Amino acid sequence: MIDSNPLILFDRISARAVLELKRENKADKLAELARRRGFFWQALEIYGGVSGFVSFGELGVKLKDKIIRLWRDYFIHKHSFTEVDTPLISPYIVFEASGHVSNFKDPMAECLKCHKKFRADHLLIEFNRKISEGISIEDMGREINKGDVKCPDCGSTKWSVGQFLTMFRTTIGPYSESEGFMRPETAQGMFTEFKRIYEISRGKMPLGVAQIGKAFRNEISPRQGVIRLREFSMMEIELFFDPLNPKCPFLNQVEDEELRIMPEDLVERGIEEPLKISVKDALSRGIIKQEWLAYFMALSKKFVIKLGVPDDKQRFHAKLPSERAHYSAQTYDHEVFLDKFGWVEVAGHAYRTDYDLSSHMKRSSVDLSVSVQLKEPIKVKHLKMSINVKKIKETFPDKFNDIIKRLKERSPEDVKREIDANGAIMVEGLKLSKEAIEFIDVKEEVKVRRFIPHVVEPSFGIERLVYATLEYAYSERENRTILKIPPYLAPIQAAVFPLVSREKLQEKSIAVWKNLREKGIDAIYDDSGSIGRRYARADEIGVPFAITIDYQTLDDDTVTVRDRDTWNQKRVTVKELSDYLLGLLHFSDS
Amino acid sequence: MIDSNPLILFDRISARAVLELKRENKADKLAELARRRGFFWQALEIYGGVSGFVSFGELGVKLKDKIIRLWRDYFIHKHSFTEVDTPLISPYIVFEASGHVSNFKDPMAECLKCHKKFRADHLLIEFNRKISEGISIEDMGREINKGDVKCPDCGSTKWSVGQFLTMFRTTIGPYSESEGFMRPETAQGMFTEFKRIYEISRGKMPLGVAQIGKAFRNEISPRQGVIRLREFSMMEIELFFDPLNPKCPFLNQVEDEELRIMPEDLVERGIEEPLKISVKDALSRGIIKQEWLAYFMALSKKFVIKLGVPDDKQRFHAKLPSERAHYSAQTYDHEVFLDKFGWVEVAGHAYRTDYDLSSHMKRSSVDLSVSVQLKEPIKVKHLKMSINVKKIKETFPDKFNDIIKRLKERSPEDVKREIDANGAIMVEGLKLSKEAIEFIDVKEEVKVRRFIPHVVEPSFGIERLVYATLEYAYSERENRTILKIPPYLAPIQAAVFPLVSREKLQEKSIAVWKNLREKGIDAIYDDSGSIGRRYARADEIGVPFAITIDYQTLDDDTVTVRDRDTWNQKRVTVKELSDYLLGLLHFSDS
Repeated sequence: MIDSNPLILFDRISARAVLELKRENKADKLAELARRRGFFWQALEIYGGVSGFVSFGELGVKLKDKIIRLWRDYFIHKHSFTEVDTPLISPYIVFEASGHVSNFKDPMAECLKCHKKFRADHLLIEFNRKISEGISIEDMGREINKGDVKCPDCGSTKWSVGQFLTMFRTTIGPYSESEGFMRPETAQGMFTEFKRIYEISRGKMPLGVAQIGKAFRNEISPRQGVIRLREFSMMEIELFFDPLNPKCPFLNQVEDEELRIMPEDLVERGIEEPLKISVKDALSRGIIKQEWLAYFMALSKKFVIKLGVPDDKQRFHAKLPSERAHYSAQTYDHEVFLDKFGWVEVAGHAYRTDYDLSSHMKRSSVDLSVSVQLKEPIKVKHLKMSINVKKIKETFPDKFNDIIKRLKERSPEDVKREIDANGAIMVEGLKLSKEAIEFIDVKEEVKVRRFIPHVVEPSFGIERLVYATLEYAYSERENRTILKIPPYLAPIQAAVFPLVSREKLQEKSIAVWKNLREKGIDAIYDDSGSIGRRYARADEIGVPFAITIDYQTLDDDTVTVRDRDTWNQKRVTVKELSDYLLGLLHFSDS
Repeated sequence: MIDSNPLILFDRISARAVLELKRENKADKLAELARRRGFFWQALEIYGGVSGFVSFGELGVKLKDKIIRLWRDYFIHKHSFTEVDTPLISPYIVFEASGHVSNFKDPMAECLKCHKKFRADHLLIEFNRKISEGISIEDMGREINKGDVKCPDCGSTKWSVGQFLTMFRTTIGPYSESEGFMRPETAQGMFTEFKRIYEISRGKMPLGVAQIGKAFRNEISPRQGVIRLREFSMMEIELFFDPLNPKCPFLNQVEDEELRIMPEDLVERGIEEPLKISVKDALSRGIIKQEWLAYFMALSKKFVIKLGVPDDKQRFHAKLPSERAHYSAQTYDHEVFLDKFGWVEVAGHAYRTDYDLSSHMKRSSVDLSVSVQLKEPIKVKHLKMSINVKKIKETFPDKFNDIIKRLKERSPEDVKREIDANGAIMVEGLKLSKEAIEFIDVKEEVKVRRFIPHVVEPSFGIERLVYATLEYAYSERENRTILKIPPYLAPIQAAVFPLVSREKLQEKSIAVWKNLREKGIDAIYDDSGSIGRRYARADEIGVPFAITIDYQTLDDDTVTVRDRDTWNQKRVTVKELSDYLLGLLHFSDS
């Protein structure tokens, strides 16, 4: 991990100590710069700050916005996917159905002396325990109470361990029983609204649905700045497809792309060095289980390279079955190496199967399956249930009508599953023996096939992408900071300076500046302090081009354009200036 | 109100009944269209829907996005204001300081029989009571229990009336005492972060800070679709200025603009016909108290005209002192006339004075005042307090050190205010008599003046703007719906059709479509159904231009461009097509 970072200078005596120092330094310098120049800072400084919340200033808003637009280009527009915007607050039933109420929990350790609360797993890792994410709460409780894990606040070693639901709870409307949650991902909105979105699309399949917006996780004790937030922004796609037609039509565009992958077996064996393998081979060897999943992983890599993170600082890390979210059949975390934090997930690529649609279908009793017209009729086997009305009537003479109604609302597969598991089935609070229902396998010739779409989901964390972009842009030269943000992402695209504070130069500079803004270039004007100081201020926030108006400008209408990264200067006529800059600022996908 | 709506046909027998019918019709048709084509719909239909929450589909997302961009052009970019993004969740202390915990409440009536809860004032209005927004809870309770106000659910007439805090509550982190709220406006984030933002701006004053994002109001029983939402989006500016230098440098651009204003005295006298008055005159006659306020109101009118709402369907409605938010010294609601809902506020323009900064300064004990360097030193009068240490020491020998320390932390003005009001002052739980402190007016010559900036705030509700845009775009022709959305706001800018489904025409059409997309035009391709049906589908979602590829195209490389509003067609060469369309789609501020 450490060796792969070329920015760090080695020292034979104490390489590790130097590394730690350098890292702290760079991350601290970046945090200071982000705060001072207004990319982002911890929110509510005047009230002492609140962990897990940041505010973005103008530069941060612009950088975020440009990363979002680039993502839209990569992931939405070129596939004609449909972008939606669903609520941040949803009632209990949504997250009960989705499994979040049961599963979206973190292990929490409470110090029995001072009653401070911490993430139990993080605490164990700090005290050098190797734990798998699948460890039970009981085992964690035993491990943490072995006597050496001290409370960071009071030093006590006695703990109770439990689970904490990491969704923000609230109440919708004036009735206290109407519990709701802030969404922990944007995804559920795309599942609950799927039926409507599918109809609007006039039955498109595969159907790509995207959403960009806020999400919330009520972390127990976040302490990693912008890397672990309680409120953050996500960009997600739910790609709905027919499980019998799982091909991705865009795959050929990326099949030779090489990915750095740590598949499950490498992760299990603790091997850190990733496999370098083409998309095609990863699919044929079953390392990636689904074409769409592979396609989005390749696109994800290309996108993150465009943010300025080189390929060899990226990897795809398989989640082990015990670590995966409750809905996922395969998950790869797309990780980026960060100086202070090590390998950090910036995106997750999950094969969610039909888990979510099936769950909401069951909970809402609304049919979320879709149908395809078949060219040739096919024979399909399916399950029918034959309800023994007479028997049910005998056993529950008052209730049999209701019971039969309820039974018919459920799918035969679902009823059979319960009977197979329990030898009986509960309906309206009554227990029916398995003899009440008979199951028959039927073969039918059909011209329409109904199915519940499967889903592949790429999911990105915007704040982490912003941070990675800044970290990889960060550089120093002659003791000055330069943010080498790719020009197409630069929050401010050009700075216009009069060489000295003379009215004629200022007037001309303001005219040039206004003209650039009219041409859609995000330019600033600055005439305070020495020209060197102004270059430095512009470099520090990543302005790719600084335009200086000098006395020669008044003669021949040329200006100097200084390049942020090379510090080279070039004279360009005022007339050509905006086209010249637009050419250099333009994003090209190559 | 009704007479001013030209869309409604009068009928001498029952004008009102017809009006109601027409209105319902148009609003219902619009709602059906919005749902079917995917502008927006009530969220969570599969779970029976949740009042006050909507989901936006692709067309809605795009329309919102374009309205936001237009607003940024009008309000942010041209003034070089700074846009920020602060958290949606904030701890209790923020909204305690801002006054929301005490003031952000709605009157709630609970039926004593069925325990359903309603907005008490809305219920009274439904039962034809005229009530002012300033009415007390007690008076409302008496009014509602007069026997004729029936519960809409069970018909009972017995009510209890209380207040309901309309912020969504939550808990931040694992400690139940860490209460927090979802923000009810984006504004507070700009006040709590003011100090940092001001420093980043290097002391700019006036300083315009903008924020676009979600806000939340836990309405008791919202029943007006997209007009009254529990979760919605806002665009706000806090314009910070020196109260001794309250000039708006942009005023001359709008001073002759005529506004339709209902000032406080008209509102008090119940006069519905607005005054037509220029910005200049409204200022000089004191109808608008502040230049920035007047400037933003004029800009607001121009912006809403650009959404397609004519001037005579807009007005500025003064809030009476009893109706104004707790922080405001003057407020004008910018209202738009909507067919079903009447006059609806789409923006609020408030003069918030230094209320918010002063409140946070007091609560956080952090100095939020700013300083200006004066060219000439000036003499200022200010208050000094002289603490009678000896007297305090005599009265509280054990505590006097603490008392004096605490006293010195407070401003002389603040201490004097408390003493003037109560004849004494509480410090550390102890009561000091007024003799303990003497106040002296001091004249000093200063070269730096410190002050707390005053604030003018224009604040827009995005969903209502989206709805108004759609309503004013809605029209019918030959029994078909046409959304005449201004071309620069149209979610889809062009539709490309092959005249008939022949491979050669389809291929050419797809090539034309792809080319338009590469040129940045949001175009769709459609080849299903008759050409008439496809024109109708495009008109219905407001696509301004439909491009048809026919057999002539294969000969001479020209296509027909059909105008949505006139249905006129024009032949254009494929080569010129994108420039031709871009010219027509371009937004011009004239």
